Parts: sequence; structure tokens; C-alpha cells
Amino acid sequence: MTRATAGSVGLVETQQVVLFDGDDPLVFESGATLGPVEVAYETYGQLNADRSNAVYICHALTGDAHAAGFHEGSERPGWWDNLIGPGKPLDTDRYFVICSNLLGGCQGTTGPSSIDPATGEQYGLRFPLFTMSDLVKVHRALVRHLGIEKVLAIVGGSLGGMQGLQWALDAPGEVASVLAVCASSRLTAQNIAFSAVAREAIMRDPDFHDGDYGRKGVAPTGGLAVARMMAHITYLSEESMRTKFGRRFQDSAEPRFGFDVDFQVESYLHYQGESFLKRFDANSYLYLTRVMDYFDLFEDMEQAAARLEQLDTRFLVLSFDSDWRFDTSHSREIVRVLAAHHVPVTFREIRSPHGHDSFLLEVPEYHRTVAGFMDRLADEVEHKGWA
Amino acid sequence: MTRATAGSVGLVETQQVVLFDGDDPLVFESGATLGPVEVAYETYGQLNADRSNAVYICHALTGDAHAAGFHEGSERPGWWDNLIGPGKPLDTDRYFVICSNLLGGCQGTTGPSSIDPATGEQYGLRFPLFTMSDLVKVHRALVRHLGIEKVLAIVGGSLGGMQGLQWALDAPGEVASVLAVCASSRLTAQNIAFSAVAREAIMRDPDFHDGDYGRKGVAPTGGLAVARMMAHITYLSEESMRTKFGRRFQDSAEPRFGFDVDFQVESYLHYQGESFLKRFDANSYLYLTRVMDYFDLFEDMEQAAARLEQLDTRFLVLSFDSDWRFDTSHSREIVRVLAAHHVPVTFREIRSPHGHDSFLLEVPEYHRTVAGFMDRLADEVEHKGWA
Repeated sequence: MTRATAGSVGLVETQQVVLFDGDDPLVFESGATLGPVEVAYETYGQLNADRSNAVYICHALTGDAHAAGFHEGSERPGWWDNLIGPGKPLDTDRYFVICSNLLGGCQGTTGPSSIDPATGEQYGLRFPLFTMSDLVKVHRALVRHLGIEKVLAIVGGSLGGMQGLQWALDAPGEVASVLAVCASSRLTAQNIAFSAVAREAIMRDPDFHDGDYGRKGVAPTGGLAVARMMAHITYLSEESMRTKFGRRFQDSAEPRFGFDVDFQVESYLHYQGESFLKRFDANSYLYLTRVMDYFDLFEDMEQAAARLEQLDTRFLVLSFDSDWRFDTSHSREIVRVLAAHHVPVTFREIRSPHGHDSFLLEVPEYHRTVAGFMDRLADEVEHKGWA
Repeated sequence: MTRATAGSVGLVETQQVVLFDGDDPLVFESGATLGPVEVAYETYGQLNADRSNAVYICHALTGDAHAAGFHEGSERPGWWDNLIGPGKPLDTDRYFVICSNLLGGCQGTTGPSSIDPATGEQYGLRFPLFTMSDLVKVHRALVRHLGIEKVLAIVGGSLGGMQGLQWALDAPGEVASVLAVCASSRLTAQNIAFSAVAREAIMRDPDFHDGDYGRKGVAPTGGLAVARMMAHITYLSEESMRTKFGRRFQDSAEPRFGFDVDFQVESYLHYQGESFLKRFDANSYLYLTRVMDYFDLFEDMEQAAARLEQLDTRFLVLSFDSDWRFDTSHSREIVRVLAAHHVPVTFREIRSPHGHDSFLLEVPEYHRTVAGFMDRLADEVEHKGWA
């Protein structure tokens, strides 16, 4: 297939749908129930006649449903616009691409800042703690709602990739492929440590009020900004920080000697922290980081093995050589277990100086690899139907 | 020389001395003046007759003057007790070891929590911002006070090593050797970033009150604990965290699912954060991290070169292979510049799984290297006098 010049999916809108309600609630792995559950999502491209071209995007910790194209009046495209669009690796001339905001999020899908119908107040920390499987359960309900029985590909980076892996194991018949980029099958102690300190920053903020800050009309902004700033350090490589900022000063050639922002890297982090406050909810940050901490895909290896043997899913596992948040050893571990159970898996460590953030950037080898994997898979499904 | 069985320096006491006062104030690099300046210090061993056996310990960010031995009633020895003592690498049967609390600190040396005689209130952020040279100026005054003209060795890890390097360049005739362990000649953007976020956590704490929390009878404990927890992540290697904690839970074999401390690594960090509050002042944390950010030993290379050519100092530069806070590239950069100016320097990267914290631990190859360097140096000085 010849790729057209890459373009934009153009103007898009976020839609919302109620997928679970009081009569038919979402049942969590823990046994807790939740309803209504509303989900915000966007789609790009057209579902084909035999409904075999659906690609599901799972977003990472702080993403949202707006993965591609432009919202009315905004000049900023969706967060994965470089990957999704006509002629792009996730080619909307060929695929029907879906992206939804995660359960527990704060961008249109039910989460801790939603109103609990039982009390008329925000859930706050009364929102049930959920697992990776619970996140996936909501994605699966959306896919059914859209009339799709089997998804051609689930694509995600970081937490997004983890959802793809979980989905394949939870619903072997529903998933033709998973593209897991800089993901992990379980966090290390250091990974958990960074999230733990981020949560500590939020929960120690006097405006946190045990998660009921909404009721008081305040927000733990200091803690949330600090959490975000710290996380940002782990998303960049040492090298990319050196190149981007070095030891340069923000507003002059000379140091100004003081505790205000002076170095460029301070200014960058400060901006990241501040702008995050406008779009993210502190409780969502707690819940979504905690999902990752507890995630351990192959913990019950016997159960996982039984599921892996039923799989009719192929995997593309990618890591970036400068990513130290989820370094290549995380991907290798996924590949090791999949390969040991004869699951078809392609693995590549991509060279990129940009650290964990690489998955959001237009790294040519990365995009070529995704495009090639998708093309081959879609060609096969077109010619032979579902394997 | 045969090394005796390593022992303890036994019972020690911290002493205090006023080294600068209103009539003869400390003059900072910035031109600001400060007096009185009181310094807390300890000494171990005996100064020899020709005063040629002084070893000066410079502590790191959160250290204090109590480097070895025991305080009355305490079972916990000083922070570098494994290195300092009879028969130990810094052998108190041979050397006269001095350790002082840094200017700007909070363990007996004048700092932002001291009373400003002009106002009768704590300095807070009215304490002058100081540089690495200013820290060194106070050490040099203490050395003079003790009747020592030339120091056999300045020994320090991390920020401690930086002081040693600065001292050698500031006072070429005063320093026979510098042992700089996991130090740096200047921080990278990532190094600065971690410190910037730590300061942000402190300064965004509502109890910070622009540094005047002391006057209000409160303290930015939340922010300071978060700063410490984050720093601790960077002091350990990924491997040592994995070995120490892995994904183990603190109080049970099973997860308890919630936002309270559940993983062992969370418990460890939580404890580190809490116990730090008892012994450290938030303003001191701001000042001492900022000294490191602005430190750039070879920034004015022409001036540095002129000083390096006058040097009569030899250097031992050590790094640890698992240290990612100040990795080996920092040490190599120091060595590169010293060697380019024909300054005698021995460099070794020590294998240790313990990350940046290794400098505080009894890593055999590290201790052997320090002992060997010190022995050779002292033998030479004993036989030939100062070179």
C-alpha cells in the first residue's frame, strides 16, 4: 500500500456515552459497583463493513480522549496527532481509531471528581479503587457499544500499553494485536517510589482535605504541581534535559542568585506544573498512579500461562534506549514471558534521545515500525479474514 | 604500616566556636557580610607536632559535624564512623580528623534558623545567599583557629567533595590533597531539576511563610518531607531498591489496596521523610541545594587554569558505577580538567550496587582505595615533609 502524504483528521468532537448505570453497574474486580459510568471518547476514520479495522488507543497517566485532530477553536491538535491521521502510521484512511478517557480520569469519563448520585457530592476518595482489568472492562463496553466484536489493534504507551496487555489476557478472542510502547508488566520499587512521593505531595497538601477538596471549593494545587514537576523529570532523559536546557539561565546570561526560577530547566518544570493544574484532578492522579503500582500482569503465572495459551493475539513491544522511567528491561520481561508461551511477539528497542516521552514524539524508526506492523497485520486480515 | 583492628574513636562531643563577629564579619563572595558566625565541629585523633596530619571532612547536603564516635547516651555513631577511627581508612591513630557543620546548616553552625542580631529574629530568607567558596572560607577559618596552616587531606562525598575541589582552587598552598567521592564540578540540568522540585515542595507549603515559619511557630513539614523522600529515590540505585524492597508489601503478604503506605518502599520513604523533619531545617535545605545549583568550578576556565597551574595538591577522584545522582561522567569531567592541567589525579570508578549512597557505606574496594591513598600520602609527608 502506498502511503498518502500524512494529513490531519481535521475537526473532531469528544462524544460521551453512558455505558453502565444503576441497574447495570460496572462491577469492579474488588466486587464494588459503580453506576452510572459515562465515557468520553473520540473516533477517527470509518468502521469498515466487516468491522475489522478498529484500532483502540489507550492513553497514559494524564492523557484524554482527544488523541488526534482539532477541537473547534483550538490550534493545538490531539496528543497523538503525529501518529494518527490520513497517511500516518495509524492511518485513518484505513483504520477506525477510537480513543477514550480512562475510568477514574477527569476529562469526561466518570472519576473521583464526578458526582456520586447517592450523595449528590463528588466521590472523592469514596470512588472505588480499581485495577487495570477494571479500566479494560470499560474499554470493552465501549467497543461493544460501537458494534465491534474484535479489535484489530490496541495501541498505547506507558500506562496505555499496560492496558493493552491486560486487555489481551482478559479477553483473548477480542484482540488481534497489541502495540505496547515503553510499557511494563509490573513496576519496580523505584517506579513505585516516584509515584508514592507524588501522591505524598498531593495528600500532604493542606487543601487536600482527604480528597474532599471539591466540596470545600479548593484544590491541592501545590501538591499536584510538585507531583507533576517530579514526574516530568522522569519523562525526559538526562541527555534531552542537557540538550534542551543545560545550565542556561532563563532571563539573562548571568545568574540572578536567589530562590526564584533562574535556570531554564526550573522555568520549564514550573510551567509544566502550573499548566497541569488547569487540566487535571488530584484525585484522578492518585487513582491512576495506584492502578499502576498494583498492576502485576504475570503475578499469578499459572493463570497467565493458561490465558496466554488461548491467545490469538500478536504483539509489538517497543522500548526506547534513553527511557529510564520504564527502561528496556521492562519490555524485555514482557517479551520473555510472551515468547516462553509461544505467543507471537516482535520486539524492538528504538534509539531516541528523548527518554520516556519518546512515545509521544515523531521518532522516525518508531513510527516506521508501527506503520509496518499495522500494514502487515491489516493486509493479512483483509486477505485471510481473522486468523 | 600495619593497620590495627579497626575501632571506634569512642565518646565525642560537638564543640562550637565563633569564627567571625560583627567587627570581623564573614565577607561573602557577593559582598554581603555576616557576623557572628558560629561553627560546630568535632575532632578525632591528635594533631601531631609539625601540624601536618590534619584531615578535614566536608559533609554533604544533610550531614553534620558528628562524623565519628558516639555522643553521650547515644548508640548511633557519627555518619562516617565506618571510615574514621583507629585502624580505619581515615586512621585516627595517625590523622587529626576535623569535621564541621556547614555554613547555612542547622546543626550548630550559623544558618538561616539562627537569630539575626540586628532584628532579634531568625534570619529566614534574609540570610545571605552563599557560594561554595563561602562555605570553604568558613572551613579555612576553623583550620586557622586550630593552628593548622596546611591540611593533609580534604575528604568529602557529593557536596562534600565539591567543597574539597573548591578549597584546593581557592587556597592552593593550604591543601596537600583532596579526596572527592561521587562529586561534581557542576550539576546537570537533571540534577538541578531534582533540587528545584524539592525546593518547590518546601516553598509551596502554606506553612513556609516566605521562610519566616519559625516566627509563626510552624514549619513546612509536608514540603520538607516530600523533598527528602524524592531525594532519597535519587540516592539509591534502581538495583538496590529492587533488592531492598522489590514489590513486597509492608504489613502483609497481600496488597491492602488503598492510598495508605502498602509497599515496603513506600514505608521506607515515609520513614525517611518523617525522621528528617526532626533534624533538618527547611531553609537550610533551600540554601544548601542552591549552592550546588550555582556551583560551576571550571566556569571561568582561564581563571581556573591559572589556579590549577599553581596547585601543589594531589587528587583522588572516586565514583560508583551504580550512582545515577552524580554518575561517573561527573567524576570523569573533573579528572579530564585536572589532568589537562598536569595536576596529579588518581581516578577510580568503584563497583557498588548501592548508588549515590555508596559513599556512606562500607564498600571494601572504596575503603581500601581511600586507605591506600592516605597511607602513601602520609608516608611521603612524614619522610620528605610537605612536597
